[in-house]
Amino acid sequence: MTNSEGKKRIVIGNVLPSVDDGSFAAKAIVNRPTVLSANVFIDGHDEVRAEALIRRKGEKPWNTLKLSPAGNDVWSVSFTPRELGIYQFQVQGWVSHFATWQKGLQKKYEAEQDIQVEIQKGIQLAEGAAGAARKPNPILLEWVRRLQGAPPGEGQVTVALEPGIAEAMEKCVNKAAITVSEKVYELMVEPREAEYSTWYELFPRSAARVPGMHGTFEDVKNLLPRISNMGFDVLYLPPIHPIGTVKRKGRNNSLEAAEGDPGSPWAIGNKQGGHKAIHPALGTLKDFKSLVSATKKCGIGVAMDIAFQCAPDHPYVSQHPEWFLWRPDGTVQYAENPPKKYEDILPFNFECDAWESLWEELKSIFIYWREKGVSIFRVDNPHTKPFPFWEWVIKEIKQDYPDTIFLAEAFTRPRLMERLAKLGFSQSYTYFAWRNTKKELEEYVTELAHTSLRYYFRPNFWPNTPDILTKELVEGKENAHIIRLLLAATLSPSYGIYGPVFEYGICEPRPGKEEYTEHWDWDKYTKIKELIIRINRIRRENTALQSMANVEFVETSNEHIICYIKTDEANGNMLIIAINLDPFATQAGHVNIPLARVVRQVFSVHDLLSGDKYEWKAGWNYVSLNPYDIPGHVFRIQQ
Amino acid sequence: MTNSEGKKRIVIGNVLPSVDDGSFAAKAIVNRPTVLSANVFIDGHDEVRAEALIRRKGEKPWNTLKLSPAGNDVWSVSFTPRELGIYQFQVQGWVSHFATWQKGLQKKYEAEQDIQVEIQKGIQLAEGAAGAARKPNPILLEWVRRLQGAPPGEGQVTVALEPGIAEAMEKCVNKAAITVSEKVYELMVEPREAEYSTWYELFPRSAARVPGMHGTFEDVKNLLPRISNMGFDVLYLPPIHPIGTVKRKGRNNSLEAAEGDPGSPWAIGNKQGGHKAIHPALGTLKDFKSLVSATKKCGIGVAMDIAFQCAPDHPYVSQHPEWFLWRPDGTVQYAENPPKKYEDILPFNFECDAWESLWEELKSIFIYWREKGVSIFRVDNPHTKPFPFWEWVIKEIKQDYPDTIFLAEAFTRPRLMERLAKLGFSQSYTYFAWRNTKKELEEYVTELAHTSLRYYFRPNFWPNTPDILTKELVEGKENAHIIRLLLAATLSPSYGIYGPVFEYGICEPRPGKEEYTEHWDWDKYTKIKELIIRINRIRRENTALQSMANVEFVETSNEHIICYIKTDEANGNMLIIAINLDPFATQAGHVNIPLARVVRQVFSVHDLLSGDKYEWKAGWNYVSLNPYDIPGHVFRIQQ
Repeated sequence: MTNSEGKKRIVIGNVLPSVDDGSFAAKAIVNRPTVLSANVFIDGHDEVRAEALIRRKGEKPWNTLKLSPAGNDVWSVSFTPRELGIYQFQVQGWVSHFATWQKGLQKKYEAEQDIQVEIQKGIQLAEGAAGAARKPNPILLEWVRRLQGAPPGEGQVTVALEPGIAEAMEKCVNKAAITVSEKVYELMVEPREAEYSTWYELFPRSAARVPGMHGTFEDVKNLLPRISNMGFDVLYLPPIHPIGTVKRKGRNNSLEAAEGDPGSPWAIGNKQGGHKAIHPALGTLKDFKSLVSATKKCGIGVAMDIAFQCAPDHPYVSQHPEWFLWRPDGTVQYAENPPKKYEDILPFNFECDAWESLWEELKSIFIYWREKGVSIFRVDNPHTKPFPFWEWVIKEIKQDYPDTIFLAEAFTRPRLMERLAKLGFSQSYTYFAWRNTKKELEEYVTELAHTSLRYYFRPNFWPNTPDILTKELVEGKENAHIIRLLLAATLSPSYGIYGPVFEYGICEPRPGKEEYTEHWDWDKYTKIKELIIRINRIRRENTALQSMANVEFVETSNEHIICYIKTDEANGNMLIIAINLDPFATQAGHVNIPLARVVRQVFSVHDLLSGDKYEWKAGWNYVSLNPYDIPGHVFRIQQ
Repeated sequence: MTNSEGKKRIVIGNVLPSVDDGSFAAKAIVNRPTVLSANVFIDGHDEVRAEALIRRKGEKPWNTLKLSPAGNDVWSVSFTPRELGIYQFQVQGWVSHFATWQKGLQKKYEAEQDIQVEIQKGIQLAEGAAGAARKPNPILLEWVRRLQGAPPGEGQVTVALEPGIAEAMEKCVNKAAITVSEKVYELMVEPREAEYSTWYELFPRSAARVPGMHGTFEDVKNLLPRISNMGFDVLYLPPIHPIGTVKRKGRNNSLEAAEGDPGSPWAIGNKQGGHKAIHPALGTLKDFKSLVSATKKCGIGVAMDIAFQCAPDHPYVSQHPEWFLWRPDGTVQYAENPPKKYEDILPFNFECDAWESLWEELKSIFIYWREKGVSIFRVDNPHTKPFPFWEWVIKEIKQDYPDTIFLAEAFTRPRLMERLAKLGFSQSYTYFAWRNTKKELEEYVTELAHTSLRYYFRPNFWPNTPDILTKELVEGKENAHIIRLLLAATLSPSYGIYGPVFEYGICEPRPGKEEYTEHWDWDKYTKIKELIIRINRIRRENTALQSMANVEFVETSNEHIICYIKTDEANGNMLIIAINLDPFATQAGHVNIPLARVVRQVFSVHDLLSGDKYEWKAGWNYVSLNPYDIPGHVFRIQQ
C-alpha cells in the first residue's frame, strides 16, 4: 500500500453497462445513447464527485464525462458513441471537501451560527488547492481575495457559494486522492441493425419463376423489390457453396440421394470448391457480388450462412487432413450423436495440434466474404465449436470490420447461448418459438429485457425457421401465424421469418423438405403477408418497437390476452399492445394501464393495425380480439 | 496464447459461493457444509468432468473434490471446512473423451451397430493416456489387454464399461487440457455464532440491585444465570471506558451536564484513559476479565462495543494531535452534521498524513481486548470510517484470531451496509425494525435469504435498541413486542434485544435516557419475558431456525397473517410459522402449504409455543391468532 492509498475513501462498484464485471465488452449502438453508471459512495457524510473516463480503444487521451447522482448511490451519465468499434471506460470518484464545506456553511448560516471560523476553513481549502496545482490558479486566488474582503455574514456567504467556484475547485483535486474503478470496461459499438432488424430467409434455389427450374442469384435479385416492399431489411441466404456429393442425403433425409437430388446446402464442399466457392447452379461470384450490391441499393443487407463443417469431398479433407479426426480404421470421423450418424458432414477437430492454422483458415472465410460485400453472418450451430475460437475470431474480424454483425444460430441450453452472446455475437436466436402462453412469454421477455442479459444478449425472434415448425403453428394455422408474427415483431426489435413458408401459412411438417427446390407463387395474396407489411411499417414508424429494454407487461383479466407497453421517451413514442394468444376463439377482457405510465387520466389511442381510434383511461380498459379478424391491437397513445 | 490454449474448450463461470466474483471472501461456518458450485460446460456434446481444488490459505497442497452435475450446467459438491480462517478454492474442468467414448459405445451397441472400430478407438484412448502419464499405468494397460481379448460384442462392451476404468482414465487426464477458473476464490470460515446467535444488550451501569447505585461488572456477573436461563448466548455491553468530562452532555441530550451526570458511554476517554482503559465506576480490568471468564462458563460470549471516536479529553488528543482535524482557530474539529454539533465527540481524521499510525493504533485496541478474552466486537457506526480501513483491520485481526466476530452497527443506505459485510463484518444490523407489513417483511427477508447477499451478509434482527423504539412498538405495546420478538427470532438465525426495556415492554420514547443509570427489577415476571424464554428454547432445539437461506414464504388469505416454512433437510427439521402482524385484533384466515414441501397429504403439527397439536394437510389450512393470547404458531411438522 503506497502512502496515499489509505486516504482513498471512495468506493466504486457495479459499473454498467458491463458483462461479468468487465470480463467481456457490453454492447452499444452507434449514435444511440447509452447510460454509463456506477455505485459511487463514501463513508460518512462528505460530498462525493464522480466522472467517467472514456476513449476509443487504441486512442490515447481519455475524455471525461461528469456523472450525476441518480439516487441510491448510483451516479450516471448518458453517452452517445459516434464511431463503431471498441470503447474503453472507467469511473473515478473523489471526496469534495470544498462542496462539503459549502453545504455546511450554508446550513450553519441559515441556522444563524457564527461562521467566521468556517470562512477561514474555506480560504484554507482554496489556498491549499491553489498551492497544490501545477500552475497558480488565478480564479481561486482571486476568489480568496474577494472572500477576505466581503462583509461578514451574508456578503461572505454570497461569495462562498458563487456559481462556478466549486467547479474551479474540482479541477484542482489532488490526483492521489482519486479512486479509479479497478478495471477498464469495454463497450462494443455496433451498427443500428445489430439491435433493430427485420429478417427474411429464403433458399435461392427455390427463387425461380418457372416451376422445376433451379433458382439463381438473378432470380433472387428479381425478388428484391418484393422483399423491400414487405419491409424487411436483412435477406438471409442458407449456404451458397458447392454441395458435397459423397454420402449426399436424398429426399426426406434418406441416406441415398437419387439422381438429381440437390443435397443439403449445409453439407458444404465438393471438388468444385468449399467455403469460399459458389454453387455453380446459383451463378458465379460476379452474380453474387451483383446481388449483394443490388440488395444494398434496396436498403437491405445480405446475411450469409457460416457453417463450419465439411462434406466428405470438401477440398479441406485432402488438403488438410490434420484438421479432422481419423478413426482407427483410417476413415475420417463424421458427425454423430450416437446412435445417430451424419455421414454427409464432417466436423473439424478443434483439439487438433494444428488448431492455429485451422483458426486462421476459418477467419479467412469471413474476410473473404467481407471483401465481397457481406457484412452480416448468420453462424450455424456456433455452440458446437469452441467458445474461445469465437471470442478470438469475432474480435479479429471486428478489428478491421467493426460494422460486421454476427447472429448466433444456437438453440441450446441457456448457459451456452449466454456465453456466445457474451463473447461477441451481435444477435442471438432465442427460445421464442417455444414460449407460447402468457406466463411463458412474460417470464422470458422479462429475463431478456430486465436482467443482466440486456447488456449483451440481443434477441432475434423467429416464429418459424426451416427446422422449426411448432405444434402451435401447425394447429392454429393462419391465425396462429398472425399471432406469433405480431408477438415477434412487437416484443423484439429484431425478428425474422422463413419466407414463403410463413407467408403462406404452410402447416404440414416437411422433413428435409427445405433441402429441395421448391416453387413459390411470389405474387399470391395472403392475409399473413398483408399483416407482415403493416406490422413492419409500424415498426419503422414507431421507435418504441426498436428496442427491447423498454417493455413493461401490464395486468390483464383474461389469461389468453397479453398486454404490454413500449415507450421511447426521448422520441415521445408510446404504444400499448394487446394480443389474443388463442388462435381458435375471440377472447375479451380488461387490461390495466398504470396511471404512472400515462400523462393524462383519459387519452386517445389509435390502433395502427386496424386504423380504429378509442378513448382509453388510466386503469382497466376493455378489449375484445377475434383471431379470425385481427388478433391484436397496436395502439399508439396520442399524448 | 500458448500452443495448447486454443484446445481448451471448457468454460467455467459463476463460481459460488463468491462475492463480486471473488473480489471478497464469501462466508462459511466451521463444521457446517457449504455447497461449492460453478457453471462448467463445453461446446457440443462431449462429456465434461469437473472438480474443485481447495486448501487453507497459506498451506501448500490443494485437495481435490469431485463435482457432480446438478442440472442446467451447474456442477457442485458439498464441502465442510474443519478449521477457522481463510480457505482458497478454484474450479477446474476438462473434456472426458473416454467418458464420451463409453457413452457412444453403449448407445451404438444398443442400436445394434458394428462396434469394432469403436473398440479400437477405446484402446487408442487408453494407450494414449497410459503413454502420456509419467509412470506406466498398469490398470489401463491391463484393461487394454482384457478388451483386446474379449469376445466381440457383449463381451467387449462389458469390459469397456467396467466399473472403475473411467476413474482410472480421469487420473491420466492431460494437464494442458484442463481449464481452471481464472480467479482463486476465498471462503472466510467463522465460528457457528457468526451465523446463529442470540443477543442481550444491557448497560452495566444499570445492573445494580440497589436503586440509585452505579452498576458494576460484579452486578453484571450476578445477572449471568438469569441471561443464560433466558436463552441468550451473547451479552453485549455498550462502551466500558472512561467517559469524557469536557463538553459532557447532560440529561435528555442537554448541552450542559449537571453535577453527577454520568455522560454518554460513547464519548470515550478522559484523563483516566481511553479505548484500552476501564471506567473506574464499573470496576477494574481484573473485574472485567473475571466477568468475561464467568460469561464463558455460562456458554455466553461478551460482545464489546468498539466506537472509534474520542471525547475532547481523551489522551489521544494531546498525544496524537496529528490524528485529528484542527480548525483555523486552533481548536479541534468535533463531530457535526450541520447545523447539528456534537461537541462531546471528536472523529478521527482518516485522511491525515499519519493514517498508517492511526490504523495501527486502532488495530491494537482490538488486539488488546482480544488478549483479555473478548472475541465479539459490535462496531459502532462503521460506515462513518473508511471502508479500506475495515477491510484491512478485519483481515489483520482474523489472521491471528480467526474466531473473532464483528457485528457492523450501520443503519444506513443499502450499498454502504452491503460493502461493510463484503469486506469482512461477520454480522450486520438490518432494516428489520422498519419492516412491519407482510409485504415489507417478505421482500426484505427474500432479499437477504435468496439473492447474492446470502453469501456475505449475515443479518442480526433487533426489534429495539437503545436508539430505536419504533411507532409499532410504542402503539402496539406488549402485543407488538411479542409479535416483533417472534418474527425476529424465527426469521433470522441471529437476533437481539435491548434487554430490560424490551422485556418490560417500555413504550415511552426515552431521548438520551439510555445514558443514565437505571434501576430494573430483574425478578419481575412479564409475558414478554416468558415468550423470550420459550422462543429461545425453540431456536436451540430446532436447527431449521438456525439459518437464513432456508426460508420460504407461503400464500395467506389475510394480509395481517404472515406464514413461512423453514426446513433443515439434513436434520429432518421442518417448521411452519404463522404470525398475526396486527397487535390490536384477532386475525383469522388460511395459509397455503405447498404439497411439494411436505411428505404426506395429511400430517400432524405441534405448536412449540402453546403445546397444541393439530392435523394439517397440503393446501389451505385455517389459523386464528389472538394477539392478546399468543399471536403466532411455531409448528413443528411430525414427519
